[in-house]
Amino acid sequence: MDEKIPLVVPEVNRKEIFRNTGIIANPNCSTIQLVVVLKPLHDAFGIKRVVVSTYQSVTGAGQKGLDQLMDELSNGGLREKKFPHPIAYNALPHIDVFFDDGYSKEEWKMMKETSKIMGEPIKLTATTVRVPVMGGHSESVNIEFEKPCSADEVRNILSKASGVIVQDDPKKNVYPMPILAKDRDEVFVGRIRKDDTVKSGINLWVVADNVRKGAATNAVQIAEVLVKGD
Amino acid sequence: MDEKIPLVVPEVNRKEIFRNTGIIANPNCSTIQLVVVLKPLHDAFGIKRVVVSTYQSVTGAGQKGLDQLMDELSNGGLREKKFPHPIAYNALPHIDVFFDDGYSKEEWKMMKETSKIMGEPIKLTATTVRVPVMGGHSESVNIEFEKPCSADEVRNILSKASGVIVQDDPKKNVYPMPILAKDRDEVFVGRIRKDDTVKSGINLWVVADNVRKGAATNAVQIAEVLVKGD
Repeated sequence: MDEKIPLVVPEVNRKEIFRNTGIIANPNCSTIQLVVVLKPLHDAFGIKRVVVSTYQSVTGAGQKGLDQLMDELSNGGLREKKFPHPIAYNALPHIDVFFDDGYSKEEWKMMKETSKIMGEPIKLTATTVRVPVMGGHSESVNIEFEKPCSADEVRNILSKASGVIVQDDPKKNVYPMPILAKDRDEVFVGRIRKDDTVKSGINLWVVADNVRKGAATNAVQIAEVLVKGD
Repeated sequence: MDEKIPLVVPEVNRKEIFRNTGIIANPNCSTIQLVVVLKPLHDAFGIKRVVVSTYQSVTGAGQKGLDQLMDELSNGGLREKKFPHPIAYNALPHIDVFFDDGYSKEEWKMMKETSKIMGEPIKLTATTVRVPVMGGHSESVNIEFEKPCSADEVRNILSKASGVIVQDDPKKNVYPMPILAKDRDEVFVGRIRKDDTVKSGINLWVVADNVRKGAATNAVQIAEVLVKGD
């Protein structure tokens, strides 16, 4: 599938493209919130490899996804079947269609779009899962770095990153959650901890409102950058 | 935390222990279903490293966990608050207490018990998450092997493994799910696919009924082995 999307975006005048087409290319929701976190860490430590598992809100499938969950929970009749199986009380390792190699298109998008947006090949493997959740997508992210790093350094870098809010005091029950991310424009990161199974590794937990940062907010933010021309 | 549990279990006469104490040591639910899958793959390809993220059922927290979810979904008053935050429509990256290094006890158990049961050190890092699910725990598992392997070889080995059922035809919407694992004694595996970000890697999705295989069934199975003395 490597030929589907070129890994590196050619150098272009972004303002010119905006003027010419009037179309803003917005990445996939689960990719956006991940890349916002990966970029400052890549700049600091150099990413070697990423393993990500998602916990995606039913709202990622639109109103019909939400309707199916609510209908199932109320034990009423289904208005429409959006997912191939029940979503209430269940976890569906199935988002979008499947390719011959067993990956879903959602997983493939995360793997390809991350490299595309970062402007260089990033080794990333993904498992994307729909859960009976509203308010935002969550991601369990394991990152292996080239350079040494500590949990405190990662926490410090992310706390200064644009559009990112660190919520990381687990002993006081403080960590990102979909119900807290709802209706917010930022990407929330917590559960930052060292992974000692590799020379330099970090685990973290990333949550964002997939309807806002995952789509509408991000489109507006891209447009703002294009209009400013920076 | 390395000193808390020895990594290798000493050689013992298991039947003798059973006779002497009458107590059966049963691992943590999320560890059991994982090790059932890891062991035959370790024997075949040699595990180098495992990255696991869990999607754990509210029933893992007992009747009170289930009660909290049902009370929240019905918008009635809470009989008792089992979880530190709402669980309905939410994802909680918090199972058991937290240690100073940021890991939860559930994560620590998975990392330590896996080595203990396998009888040798296995590099494993975990993120454990509670979701509003019933019927079983799901796990997104990324495995790096020493020896080369293919998805077909992994599928073949797991389809012959004791207590494991392979459900892996995603284009036909066939993969393990909590609602299918409920009231079953087996461990279900699917979404088996090659991870090309390492020399020899596999992603897979493991689901089991945490009340059965995760506890009661496994205790009975251990007792059966001990009584047979094999």
